[in-house]
Amino acid sequence: MKPTPLPRSSYRFERRITTRWADNDVYGHVNNALYYSFFDTTITSYLMSRGGLLPDSGPMIFVVASDCAYFRAFAFPETIESALAVAAVGAKSVTWRIGLFGEGEDEPRAQGRFVHVCVDRATQRPMAWPQDWLEAFEAIRTTSA
Amino acid sequence: MKPTPLPRSSYRFERRITTRWADNDVYGHVNNALYYSFFDTTITSYLMSRGGLLPDSGPMIFVVASDCAYFRAFAFPETIESALAVAAVGAKSVTWRIGLFGEGEDEPRAQGRFVHVCVDRATQRPMAWPQDWLEAFEAIRTTSA
Amino acid sequence: MKPTPLPRSSYRFERRITTRWADNDVYGHVNNALYYSFFDTTITSYLMSRGGLLPDSGPMIFVVASDCAYFRAFAFPETIESALAVAAVGAKSVTWRIGLFGEGEDEPRAQGRFVHVCVDRATQRPMAWPQDWLEAFEAIRTTSA
Amino acid sequence: MKPTPLPRSSYRFERRITTRWADNDVYGHVNNALYYSFFDTTITSYLMSRGGLLPDSGPMIFVVASDCAYFRAFAFPETIESALAVAAVGAKSVTWRIGLFGEGEDEPRAQGRFVHVCVDRATQRPMAWPQDWLEAFEAIRTTSA
Repeated sequence: MKPTPLPRSSYRFERRITTRWADNDVYGHVNNALYYSFFDTTITSYLMSRGGLLPDSGPMIFVVASDCAYFRAFAFPETIESALAVAAVGAKSVTWRIGLFGEGEDEPRAQGRFVHVCVDRATQRPMAWPQDWLEAFEAIRTTSA
Repeated sequence: MKPTPLPRSSYRFERRITTRWADNDVYGHVNNALYYSFFDTTITSYLMSRGGLLPDSGPMIFVVASDCAYFRAFAFPETIESALAVAAVGAKSVTWRIGLFGEGEDEPRAQGRFVHVCVDRATQRPMAWPQDWLEAFEAIRTTSA
Repeated sequence: MKPTPLPRSSYRFERRITTRWADNDVYGHVNNALYYSFFDTTITSYLMSRGGLLPDSGPMIFVVASDCAYFRAFAFPETIESALAVAAVGAKSVTWRIGLFGEGEDEPRAQGRFVHVCVDRATQRPMAWPQDWLEAFEAIRTTSA
Repeated sequence: MKPTPLPRSSYRFERRITTRWADNDVYGHVNNALYYSFFDTTITSYLMSRGGLLPDSGPMIFVVASDCAYFRAFAFPETIESALAVAAVGAKSVTWRIGLFGEGEDEPRAQGRFVHVCVDRATQRPMAWPQDWLEAFEAIRTTSA
Protein backbone atom coordinates (compact mmCIF):
# COMPACT_ATOMS: atom_id res chain seq x y z
CA MET A 1 0.00 0.00 0.00
CA LYS A 2 3.05 2.36 0.18
CA PRO A 3 3.45 4.56 -2.93
CA THR A 4 6.53 6.44 -4.12
CA PRO A 5 6.60 9.92 -2.55
CA LEU A 6 6.11 12.54 -5.28
CA PRO A 7 7.67 16.01 -5.15
CA ARG A 8 5.73 19.26 -5.32
CA SER A 9 6.37 19.63 -9.05
CA SER A 10 4.01 16.69 -9.60
CA TYR A 11 1.07 18.90 -8.64
CA ARG A 12 -0.71 21.84 -10.30
CA PHE A 13 -2.67 23.68 -7.56
CA GLU A 14 -1.82 24.57 -3.95
CA ARG A 15 -3.71 25.71 -0.88
CA ARG A 16 -2.46 26.60 2.59
CA ILE A 17 -4.24 24.95 5.53
CA THR A 18 -3.64 26.10 9.09
CA THR A 19 -3.63 23.46 11.80
CA ARG A 20 -5.68 23.77 15.00
CA TRP A 21 -4.95 22.92 18.62
CA ALA A 22 -7.64 20.23 18.64
CA ASP A 23 -6.11 18.56 15.56
CA ASN A 24 -3.35 17.11 17.72
CA ASP A 25 -4.15 13.79 19.33
CA VAL A 26 -2.69 12.24 22.46
CA TYR A 27 0.56 11.55 20.62
CA GLY A 28 0.96 15.27 19.89
CA HIS A 29 0.47 14.75 16.14
CA VAL A 30 -2.32 15.84 13.84
CA ASN A 31 -4.84 12.99 13.87
CA ASN A 32 -4.62 10.75 10.81
CA ALA A 33 -8.30 11.08 9.86
CA LEU A 34 -7.91 14.83 9.42
CA TYR A 35 -5.60 14.31 6.47
CA TYR A 36 -8.67 13.34 4.48
CA SER A 37 -10.34 16.55 5.58
CA PHE A 38 -7.31 18.41 4.21
CA PHE A 39 -7.68 16.46 0.96
CA ASP A 40 -11.32 17.37 0.43
CA THR A 41 -10.68 20.96 1.52
CA THR A 42 -8.09 21.22 -1.23
CA ILE A 43 -10.30 19.65 -3.86
CA THR A 44 -13.40 21.66 -3.03
CA SER A 45 -11.51 24.94 -2.77
CA TYR A 46 -10.07 24.28 -6.22
CA LEU A 47 -13.50 23.49 -7.65
CA MET A 48 -15.09 26.52 -5.96
CA SER A 49 -12.30 28.78 -7.28
CA ARG A 50 -13.16 27.52 -10.78
CA GLY A 51 -16.84 28.25 -10.24
CA GLY A 52 -18.09 24.71 -10.77
CA LEU A 53 -18.90 23.59 -7.27
CA LEU A 54 -21.69 25.38 -5.41
CA PRO A 55 -22.81 24.22 -1.97
CA ASP A 56 -26.52 24.68 -2.63
CA SER A 57 -27.10 24.20 -6.35
CA GLY A 58 -25.66 22.36 -9.34
CA PRO A 59 -24.03 18.92 -9.37
CA MET A 60 -22.79 17.36 -6.13
CA ILE A 61 -19.64 15.28 -5.70
CA PHE A 62 -19.73 12.07 -3.70
CA VAL A 63 -16.60 10.24 -2.58
CA VAL A 64 -16.49 6.58 -3.60
CA ALA A 65 -12.93 5.78 -2.53
CA SER A 66 -9.96 7.42 -0.86
CA ASP A 67 -6.56 6.43 0.44
CA CYS A 68 -3.56 7.97 2.16
CA ALA A 69 0.05 7.02 2.84
CA TYR A 70 1.66 8.73 5.83
CA PHE A 71 5.39 9.53 5.70
CA ARG A 72 5.95 12.04 8.52
CA ALA A 73 3.52 13.62 10.96
CA PHE A 74 2.31 17.22 11.18
CA ALA A 75 1.82 18.91 14.54
CA PHE A 76 0.02 22.08 15.55
CA PRO A 77 0.92 24.98 15.05
CA GLU A 78 2.43 24.00 11.70
CA THR A 79 0.89 25.21 8.45
CA ILE A 80 0.21 22.63 5.72
CA GLU A 81 0.80 23.30 2.04
CA SER A 82 -1.57 21.00 0.21
CA ALA A 83 -0.97 20.26 -3.48
CA LEU A 84 -3.45 18.89 -5.98
CA ALA A 85 -3.56 17.30 -9.44
CA VAL A 86 -6.02 15.27 -11.46
CA ALA A 87 -4.81 11.76 -12.27
CA ALA A 88 -7.72 10.35 -14.28
CA VAL A 89 -11.09 11.47 -15.62
CA GLY A 90 -14.03 9.26 -16.55
CA ALA A 91 -17.44 10.24 -17.90
CA LYS A 92 -18.92 10.29 -14.39
CA SER A 93 -15.85 10.07 -12.11
CA VAL A 94 -12.54 11.77 -11.40
CA THR A 95 -9.43 10.62 -9.54
CA TRP A 96 -7.47 13.27 -7.64
CA ARG A 97 -3.93 13.05 -6.29
CA ILE A 98 -3.03 15.13 -3.23
CA GLY A 99 0.30 15.72 -1.49
CA LEU A 100 0.65 17.38 1.91
CA PHE A 101 3.87 19.33 2.45
CA GLY A 102 5.43 21.24 5.30
CA GLU A 103 6.13 24.91 4.56
CA GLY A 104 8.76 25.16 1.82
CA GLU A 105 9.42 21.41 1.89
CA ASP A 106 9.66 19.28 -1.24
CA GLU A 107 9.23 15.85 0.35
CA PRO A 108 5.60 15.08 1.13
CA ARG A 109 4.49 14.29 4.68
CA ALA A 110 1.53 12.40 3.22
CA GLN A 111 0.13 11.50 -0.14
CA GLY A 112 -3.27 10.24 -1.19
CA ARG A 113 -6.09 9.89 -3.65
CA PHE A 114 -9.80 10.68 -3.82
CA VAL A 115 -12.27 9.28 -6.34
CA HIS A 116 -15.38 11.41 -6.78
CA VAL A 117 -18.49 10.72 -8.81
CA CYS A 118 -20.78 13.41 -10.15
CA VAL A 119 -24.28 13.27 -8.67
CA ASP A 120 -27.43 15.03 -9.83
CA ARG A 121 -28.80 17.05 -6.91
CA ALA A 122 -32.45 16.37 -7.72
CA THR A 123 -32.32 12.65 -8.51
CA GLN A 124 -29.30 11.80 -6.35
CA ARG A 125 -28.13 9.61 -9.26
CA PRO A 126 -24.74 9.64 -11.00
CA MET A 127 -24.55 11.98 -13.98
CA ALA A 128 -21.95 12.98 -16.58
CA TRP A 129 -19.65 15.89 -15.68
CA PRO A 130 -20.73 19.26 -17.09
CA GLN A 131 -18.30 20.69 -19.67
CA ASP A 132 -16.86 23.39 -17.37
CA TRP A 133 -16.03 20.74 -14.78
CA LEU A 134 -14.15 18.70 -17.38
CA GLU A 135 -12.18 21.82 -18.24
CA ALA A 136 -11.35 22.37 -14.59
CA PHE A 137 -10.03 18.80 -14.40
CA GLU A 138 -7.95 19.19 -17.55
CA ALA A 139 -6.39 22.40 -16.23
CA ILE A 140 -4.58 20.49 -13.47
CA ARG A 141 -4.27 17.07 -15.06
CA THR A 142 -0.90 15.35 -15.02
CA THR A 143 0.39 12.15 -16.51
CA SER A 144 2.75 11.23 -13.65
CA ALA A 145 1.64 8.61 -11.14
CA MET B 1 -10.01 0.81 -5.95
CA LYS B 2 -13.49 -0.67 -5.25
CA PRO B 3 -13.39 -3.85 -3.14
CA THR B 4 -16.08 -6.50 -2.71
CA PRO B 5 -18.41 -5.55 0.15
CA LEU B 6 -17.98 -8.02 3.01
CA PRO B 7 -20.83 -9.03 5.35
CA ARG B 8 -20.75 -8.66 9.11
CA SER B 9 -19.71 -12.28 9.60
CA SER B 10 -16.31 -11.36 8.14
CA TYR B 11 -15.48 -9.44 11.31
CA ARG B 12 -14.72 -10.43 14.90
CA PHE B 13 -15.29 -7.31 17.09
CA GLU B 14 -17.97 -4.63 17.08
CA ARG B 15 -18.43 -1.18 18.57
CA ARG B 16 -21.35 1.24 18.37
CA ILE B 17 -20.56 4.81 17.38
CA THR B 18 -23.15 7.56 17.68
CA THR B 19 -23.19 10.25 15.02
CA ARG B 20 -23.20 13.97 15.84
CA TRP B 21 -25.02 16.94 14.32
CA ALA B 22 -21.72 18.47 13.16
CA ASP B 23 -20.76 15.24 11.36
CA ASN B 24 -23.19 16.07 8.57
CA ASP B 25 -21.79 18.22 5.81
CA VAL B 26 -23.63 20.51 3.40
CA TYR B 27 -24.99 17.49 1.55
CA GLY B 28 -26.64 16.23 4.74
CA HIS B 29 -24.33 13.19 4.97
CA VAL B 30 -21.65 12.31 7.47
CA ASN B 31 -18.43 13.81 6.07
CA ASN B 32 -16.21 11.25 4.35
CA ALA B 33 -13.10 12.04 6.42
CA LEU B 34 -14.90 11.06 9.62
CA TYR B 35 -15.12 7.45 8.47
CA TYR B 36 -11.42 7.20 9.23
CA SER B 37 -12.08 8.56 12.70
CA PHE B 38 -14.64 5.76 13.14
CA PHE B 39 -12.00 3.29 11.97
CA ASP B 40 -9.38 4.37 14.48
CA THR B 41 -11.99 4.65 17.23
CA THR B 42 -12.87 1.01 16.62
CA ILE B 43 -9.26 -0.15 16.54
CA THR B 44 -8.17 1.77 19.63
CA SER B 45 -11.22 0.78 21.65
CA TYR B 46 -10.47 -2.85 20.83
CA LEU B 47 -6.83 -2.47 21.85
CA MET B 48 -7.74 -0.62 25.04
CA SER B 49 -10.32 -3.28 25.94
CA ARG B 50 -7.51 -5.86 25.64
CA GLY B 51 -5.26 -3.80 27.89
CA GLY B 52 -2.47 -3.29 25.38
CA LEU B 53 -2.91 0.31 24.33
CA LEU B 54 -2.41 3.00 26.94
CA PRO B 55 -2.58 6.69 26.01
CA ASP B 56 0.37 7.75 28.17
CA SER B 57 2.70 4.77 28.46
CA GLY B 58 3.78 1.69 26.54
CA PRO B 59 4.10 1.31 22.76
CA MET B 60 2.41 3.76 20.44
CA ILE B 61 0.73 2.96 17.13
CA PHE B 62 1.36 5.13 14.08
CA VAL B 63 -0.72 4.91 10.93
CA VAL B 64 1.31 4.38 7.76
CA ALA B 65 -1.53 3.79 5.32
CA SER B 66 -5.33 3.74 5.22
CA ASP B 67 -8.07 3.45 2.65
CA CYS B 68 -11.85 3.43 2.46
CA ALA B 69 -14.50 2.52 -0.09
CA TYR B 70 -17.87 4.21 0.34
CA PHE B 71 -21.04 2.31 -0.63
CA ARG B 72 -23.89 4.28 0.99
CA ALA B 73 -23.83 7.36 3.20
CA PHE B 74 -24.64 7.71 6.89
CA ALA B 75 -26.54 10.70 8.21
CA PHE B 76 -27.06 12.05 11.72
CA PRO B 77 -28.84 10.89 13.92
CA GLU B 78 -28.03 7.34 12.77
CA THR B 79 -25.92 5.03 14.93
CA ILE B 80 -23.02 3.22 13.29
CA GLU B 81 -22.10 -0.37 14.05
CA SER B 82 -18.42 -0.67 13.31
CA ALA B 83 -16.87 -4.11 12.81
CA LEU B 84 -13.20 -5.04 13.03
CA ALA B 85 -10.86 -7.86 12.08
CA VAL B 86 -7.11 -8.31 11.64
CA ALA B 87 -6.10 -9.16 8.08
CA ALA B 88 -2.32 -9.46 8.40
CA VAL B 89 0.38 -9.26 11.08
CA GLY B 90 4.06 -8.49 10.57
CA ALA B 91 6.85 -8.24 13.13
CA LYS B 92 6.33 -4.48 13.44
CA SER B 93 3.09 -3.84 11.57
CA VAL B 94 -0.55 -4.89 11.49
CA THR B 95 -3.27 -4.53 8.85
CA TRP B 96 -6.83 -4.04 10.07
CA ARG B 97 -10.07 -4.42 8.11
CA ILE B 98 -13.08 -2.38 9.19
CA GLY B 99 -16.69 -2.42 7.99
CA LEU B 100 -19.25 0.24 8.91
CA PHE B 101 -22.84 -0.96 9.10
CA GLY B 102 -26.21 0.64 9.76
CA GLU B 103 -28.06 -0.76 12.78
CA GLY B 104 -28.95 -4.38 12.11
CA GLU B 105 -27.80 -4.21 8.51
CA ASP B 106 -25.61 -6.85 6.88
CA GLU B 107 -24.44 -4.86 3.86
CA PRO B 108 -21.66 -2.42 4.73
CA ARG B 109 -22.05 1.30 4.11
CA ALA B 110 -18.26 1.58 3.95
CA GLN B 111 -15.25 -0.68 4.19
CA GLY B 112 -11.59 0.09 4.73
CA ARG B 113 -8.15 -0.76 5.99
CA PHE B 114 -5.59 0.68 8.38
CA VAL B 115 -1.92 -0.27 8.57
CA HIS B 116 -0.31 0.51 11.92
CA VAL B 117 3.31 0.20 12.94
CA CYS B 118 4.46 -0.26 16.52
CA VAL B 119 6.55 2.66 17.81
CA ASP B 120 8.69 2.87 20.92
CA ARG B 121 7.50 5.85 22.98
CA ALA B 122 10.98 6.86 24.13
CA THR B 123 12.93 6.53 20.88
CA GLN B 124 10.00 7.16 18.50
CA ARG B 125 11.44 4.30 16.38
CA PRO B 126 9.59 1.22 15.08
CA MET B 127 9.74 -1.77 17.43
CA ALA B 128 8.46 -5.35 17.45
CA TRP B 129 4.96 -5.92 18.87
CA PRO B 130 4.89 -7.07 22.50
CA GLN B 131 3.55 -10.59 22.98
CA ASP B 132 0.18 -9.52 24.42
CA TRP B 133 -0.44 -7.30 21.40
CA LEU B 134 0.23 -10.23 19.07
CA GLU B 135 -2.31 -12.24 21.03
CA ALA B 136 -4.85 -9.45 20.70
CA PHE B 137 -4.32 -9.48 16.94
CA GLU B 138 -4.67 -13.26 16.71
CA ALA B 139 -7.91 -13.16 18.68
CA ILE B 140 -9.69 -11.34 15.85
CA ARG B 141 -7.66 -12.49 12.88
CA THR B 142 -9.50 -13.78 9.82
CA THR B 143 -8.35 -15.31 6.57
CA SER B 144 -11.00 -13.76 4.35
CA ALA B 145 -10.12 -10.70 2.23
CA MET C 1 -18.92 32.52 35.21
CA LYS C 2 -19.13 29.32 37.32
CA PRO C 3 -22.70 28.07 37.85
CA THR C 4 -24.02 25.66 40.47
CA PRO C 5 -23.76 22.07 39.19
CA LEU C 6 -27.25 20.65 38.67
CA PRO C 7 -28.11 16.95 39.13
CA ARG C 8 -29.63 14.76 36.45
CA SER C 9 -33.13 15.25 37.85
CA SER C 10 -32.98 18.86 36.61
CA TYR C 11 -33.26 17.61 33.04
CA ARG C 12 -36.05 16.04 30.98
CA PHE C 13 -34.41 14.29 27.98
CA GLU C 14 -31.26 12.18 27.65
CA ARG C 15 -29.07 10.95 24.81
CA ARG C 16 -25.97 8.77 24.88
CA ILE C 17 -22.93 10.05 22.97
CA THR C 18 -19.93 7.82 22.36
CA THR C 19 -16.50 9.42 22.43
CA ARG C 20 -13.92 8.95 19.67
CA TRP C 21 -10.18 8.46 19.71
CA ALA C 22 -9.62 11.78 17.94
CA ASP C 23 -11.68 13.62 20.59
CA ASN C 24 -8.80 13.38 23.03
CA ASP C 25 -6.28 16.19 22.81
CA VAL C 26 -2.62 16.19 23.86
CA TYR C 27 -3.65 16.22 27.51
CA GLY C 28 -5.54 12.96 27.03
CA HIS C 29 -8.93 14.63 27.62
CA VAL C 30 -11.83 15.25 25.28
CA ASN C 31 -11.16 18.65 23.73
CA ASN C 32 -13.21 21.44 25.31
CA ALA C 33 -14.73 22.68 22.03
CA LEU C 34 -16.37 19.29 21.43
CA TYR C 35 -18.61 19.79 24.46
CA TYR C 36 -20.55 22.27 22.34
CA SER C 37 -20.87 19.65 19.63
CA PHE C 38 -22.35 17.33 22.28
CA PHE C 39 -24.75 20.11 23.27
CA ASP C 40 -26.06 20.68 19.76
CA THR C 41 -26.18 16.95 19.07
CA THR C 42 -28.46 16.58 22.09
CA ILE C 43 -30.69 19.49 21.11
CA THR C 44 -31.04 18.50 17.46
CA SER C 45 -31.64 14.84 18.24
CA TYR C 46 -34.43 15.90 20.61
CA LEU C 47 -35.97 18.18 17.98
CA MET C 48 -35.66 15.54 15.26
CA SER C 49 -37.25 12.92 17.53
CA ARG C 50 -40.21 15.31 17.93
CA GLY C 51 -40.46 15.75 14.18
CA GLY C 52 -39.94 19.51 14.13
CA LEU C 53 -36.39 19.82 12.83
CA LEU C 54 -35.65 18.66 9.31
CA PRO C 55 -32.22 19.13 7.76
CA ASP C 56 -33.51 20.17 4.34
CA SER C 57 -36.89 21.82 4.83
CA GLY C 58 -38.85 23.82 7.40
CA PRO C 59 -37.46 26.36 9.89
CA MET C 60 -33.75 26.44 10.70
CA ILE C 61 -32.22 27.10 14.09
CA PHE C 62 -29.26 29.46 14.41
CA VAL C 63 -27.18 29.73 17.56
CA VAL C 64 -26.85 33.24 18.92
CA ALA C 65 -25.07 32.47 22.19
CA SER C 66 -23.66 29.52 24.09
CA ASP C 67 -21.64 28.88 27.22
CA CYS C 68 -20.16 25.99 29.17
CA ALA C 69 -18.68 25.41 32.60
CA TYR C 70 -16.26 22.50 32.90
CA PHE C 71 -16.13 20.54 36.17
CA ARG C 72 -14.29 17.30 35.31
CA ALA C 73 -12.91 16.04 32.03
CA PHE C 74 -14.10 13.17 29.85
CA ALA C 75 -11.63 10.89 28.11
CA PHE C 76 -12.03 8.37 25.30
CA PRO C 77 -13.35 5.60 25.44
CA GLU C 78 -15.92 6.90 27.95
CA THR C 79 -19.58 7.25 26.96
CA ILE C 80 -21.33 10.54 27.71
CA GLU C 81 -24.89 10.77 28.97
CA SER C 82 -26.14 14.15 27.85
CA ALA C 83 -29.22 15.64 29.51
CA LEU C 84 -31.42 18.43 28.20
CA ALA C 85 -34.09 20.85 29.38
CA VAL C 86 -35.64 24.08 28.14
CA ALA C 87 -35.02 27.03 30.44
CA ALA C 88 -36.81 29.86 28.62
CA VAL C 89 -38.92 30.37 25.51
CA GLY C 90 -39.44 33.62 23.61
CA ALA C 91 -41.50 34.27 20.48
CA LYS C 92 -38.47 33.74 18.24
CA SER C 93 -35.86 32.28 20.62
CA VAL C 94 -35.30 29.43 23.05
CA THR C 95 -32.75 28.87 25.81
CA TRP C 96 -31.61 25.31 26.43
CA ARG C 97 -29.79 23.90 29.45
CA ILE C 98 -27.53 20.89 28.97
CA GLY C 99 -25.64 18.73 31.47
CA LEU C 100 -23.01 16.18 30.50
CA PHE C 101 -22.71 13.17 32.82
CA GLY C 102 -20.51 10.12 33.04
CA GLU C 103 -22.37 6.80 32.85
CA GLY C 104 -24.61 6.45 35.89
CA GLU C 105 -23.18 9.56 37.53
CA ASP C 106 -25.31 12.26 39.11
CA GLU C 107 -22.73 15.04 39.28
CA PRO C 108 -22.25 16.76 35.93
CA ARG C 109 -18.84 16.85 34.26
CA ALA C 110 -19.95 19.97 32.40
CA GLN C 111 -22.99 22.20 32.16
CA GLY C 112 -23.99 24.79 29.62
CA ARG C 113 -26.56 26.75 27.69
CA PHE C 114 -27.51 27.35 24.07
CA VAL C 115 -29.72 30.15 22.77
CA HIS C 116 -31.28 29.42 19.39
CA VAL C 117 -33.37 31.67 17.18
CA CYS C 118 -35.87 30.41 14.63
CA VAL C 119 -34.93 31.33 11.06
CA ASP C 120 -37.05 31.13 7.92
CA ARG C 121 -35.21 28.98 5.38
CA ALA C 122 -36.25 31.06 2.37
CA THR C 123 -35.69 34.58 3.72
CA GLN C 124 -32.96 33.70 6.25
CA ARG C 125 -34.76 36.09 8.64
CA PRO C 126 -35.91 35.38 12.20
CA MET C 127 -39.46 34.06 12.45
CA ALA C 128 -41.86 32.98 15.21
CA TRP C 129 -41.68 29.34 16.32
CA PRO C 130 -44.30 27.06 14.74
CA GLN C 131 -46.84 25.69 17.22
CA ASP C 132 -45.43 22.13 17.24
CA TRP C 133 -41.99 23.48 18.13
CA LEU C 134 -43.46 25.41 21.07
CA GLU C 135 -45.04 22.17 22.25
CA ALA C 136 -41.72 20.38 21.97
CA PHE C 137 -40.14 23.08 24.15
CA GLU C 138 -42.92 22.90 26.75
CA ALA C 139 -42.57 19.12 26.98
CA ILE C 140 -39.09 19.43 28.54
CA ARG C 141 -39.36 22.86 30.15
CA THR C 142 -38.24 23.24 33.75
CA THR C 143 -38.35 26.08 36.21
CA SER C 144 -35.05 25.34 37.96
CA ALA C 145 -31.94 27.37 37.02
CA MET D 1 -26.10 36.85 27.14
CA LYS D 2 -25.47 39.18 24.15
CA PRO D 3 -22.41 41.43 24.59
CA THR D 4 -21.49 44.62 22.73
CA PRO D 5 -19.48 43.77 19.60
CA LEU D 6 -15.92 45.05 19.99
CA PRO D 7 -13.79 46.25 17.06
CA ARG D 8 -10.42 44.83 16.12
CA SER D 9 -8.58 47.60 17.98
CA SER D 10 -9.78 46.04 21.24
CA TYR D 11 -7.38 43.14 20.70
CA ARG D 12 -3.58 42.76 20.82
CA PHE D 13 -2.70 39.56 18.90
CA GLU D 14 -4.02 38.07 15.66
CA ARG D 15 -3.85 34.71 13.90
CA ARG D 16 -5.28 33.61 10.56
CA ILE D 17 -7.32 30.41 10.55
CA THR D 18 -8.34 28.74 7.30
CA THR D 19 -11.74 27.07 7.17
CA ARG D 20 -12.26 23.50 5.92
CA TRP D 21 -14.94 21.88 3.77
CA ALA D 22 -16.06 19.71 6.68
CA ASP D 23 -16.50 22.78 8.92
CA ASN D 24 -19.71 23.65 7.11
CA ASP D 25 -22.83 22.00 8.48
CA VAL D 26 -26.11 21.26 6.70
CA TYR D 27 -26.97 24.95 6.74
CA GLY D 28 -23.81 25.75 4.78
CA HIS D 29 -22.25 27.62 7.72
CA VAL D 30 -19.24 26.81 9.86
CA ASN D 31 -20.61 24.74 12.76
CA ASN D 32 -21.01 26.75 15.95
CA ALA D 33 -18.92 24.41 18.13
CA LEU D 34 -15.86 25.02 15.95
CA TYR D 35 -15.74 28.65 17.03
CA TYR D 36 -14.41 27.40 20.36
CA SER D 37 -11.76 25.43 18.52
CA PHE D 38 -10.75 28.69 16.82
CA PHE D 39 -10.62 30.35 20.24
CA ASP D 40 -8.29 27.77 21.76
CA THR D 41 -6.19 27.65 18.60
CA THR D 42 -5.65 31.40 18.94
CA ILE D 43 -4.81 31.21 22.62
CA THR D 44 -2.45 28.26 22.36
CA SER D 45 -0.67 29.64 19.30
CA TYR D 46 -0.09 32.87 21.21
CA LEU D 47 1.24 31.00 24.24
CA MET D 48 3.44 28.74 22.09
CA SER D 49 4.82 31.77 20.22
CA ARG D 50 5.82 33.20 23.63
CA GLY D 51 7.53 29.96 24.60
CA GLY D 52 5.43 29.25 27.69
CA LEU D 53 3.15 26.46 26.51
CA LEU D 54 4.73 23.14 25.58
CA PRO D 55 2.58 20.15 24.62
CA ASP D 56 4.63 17.61 26.54
CA SER D 57 6.24 19.40 29.47
CA GLY D 58 5.67 22.33 31.79
CA PRO D 59 2.34 23.61 33.12
CA MET D 60 -0.90 22.62 31.43
CA ILE D 61 -3.93 24.85 30.89
CA PHE D 62 -7.40 23.53 31.61
CA VAL D 63 -10.56 25.34 30.52
CA VAL D 64 -13.03 26.00 33.32
CA ALA D 65 -15.51 28.17 31.43
CA SER D 66 -16.11 29.55 27.96
CA ASP D 67 -18.78 31.47 26.11
CA CYS D 68 -19.48 32.82 22.65
CA ALA D 69 -21.93 35.26 21.06
CA TYR D 70 -22.57 34.75 17.35
CA PHE D 71 -23.28 37.81 15.18
CA ARG D 72 -22.83 36.57 11.58
CA ALA D 73 -21.83 33.17 10.23
CA PHE D 74 -18.63 32.12 8.50
CA ALA D 75 -18.70 29.71 5.57
CA PHE D 76 -15.98 27.68 3.86
CA PRO D 77 -13.78 28.72 2.00
CA GLU D 78 -13.52 31.96 4.02
CA THR D 79 -10.43 32.71 6.09
CA ILE D 80 -10.92 33.81 9.70
CA GLU D 81 -8.85 36.51 11.37
CA SER D 82 -8.92 35.71 15.06
CA ALA D 83 -8.00 38.41 17.56
CA LEU D 84 -6.97 37.93 21.17
CA ALA D 85 -6.55 39.93 24.37
CA VAL D 86 -6.28 39.18 28.08
CA ALA D 87 -9.14 40.58 30.13
CA ALA D 88 -8.21 39.47 33.65
CA VAL D 89 -5.42 37.63 35.45
CA GLY D 90 -5.65 35.82 38.78
CA ALA D 91 -2.95 33.93 40.67
CA LYS D 92 -4.03 30.63 39.08
CA SER D 93 -6.43 31.70 36.32
CA VAL D 94 -6.66 33.92 33.28
CA THR D 95 -9.62 35.26 31.29
CA TRP D 96 -9.16 35.69 27.55
CA ARG D 97 -11.29 37.69 25.13
CA ILE D 98 -11.42 36.58 21.50
CA GLY D 99 -13.03 38.16 18.44
CA LEU D 100 -13.45 36.40 15.10
CA PHE D 101 -13.36 38.66 12.04
CA GLY D 102 -13.76 38.19 8.30
CA GLU D 103 -10.75 39.24 6.24
CA GLY D 104 -10.26 42.98 6.58
CA GLU D 105 -13.50 43.44 8.49
CA ASP D 106 -13.81 45.51 11.65
CA GLU D 107 -17.12 44.17 12.93
CA PRO D 108 -16.77 40.79 14.62
CA ARG D 109 -18.67 37.75 13.37
CA ALA D 110 -18.38 36.26 16.84
CA GLN D 111 -16.96 37.18 20.22
CA GLY D 112 -16.20 35.10 23.26
CA ARG D 113 -14.24 34.32 26.39
CA PHE D 114 -12.16 31.49 27.79
CA VAL D 115 -11.15 31.04 31.43
CA HIS D 116 -8.08 28.86 31.89
CA VAL D 117 -6.51 27.61 35.09
CA CYS D 118 -2.87 26.63 35.42
CA VAL D 119 -2.38 22.95 36.24
CA ASP D 120 0.74 21.14 37.40
CA ARG D 121 1.48 18.30 34.97
CA ALA D 122 2.66 15.89 37.63
CA THR D 123 0.05 16.43 40.33
CA GLN D 124 -2.80 17.53 38.02
CA ARG D 125 -3.58 20.19 40.65
CA PRO D 126 -3.99 23.94 40.11
CA MET D 127 -0.78 25.93 40.52
CA ALA D 128 0.29 29.57 40.32
CA TRP D 129 1.31 30.88 36.89
CA PRO D 130 5.07 30.93 36.26
CA GLN D 131 6.53 34.43 35.89
CA ASP D 132 7.05 34.21 32.11
CA TRP D 133 3.39 33.28 31.64
CA LEU D 134 2.31 36.33 33.64
CA GLU D 135 4.47 38.45 31.36
CA ALA D 136 2.86 36.90 28.30
CA PHE D 137 -0.56 37.80 29.72
CA GLU D 138 0.48 41.38 30.50
CA ALA D 139 1.82 41.84 26.97
CA ILE D 140 -1.68 41.61 25.50
CA ARG D 141 -3.77 42.77 28.44
CA THR D 142 -6.43 45.40 27.84
CA THR D 143 -8.77 47.29 30.11
CA SER D 144 -11.73 47.43 27.72
CA ALA D 145 -14.62 45.01 28.21
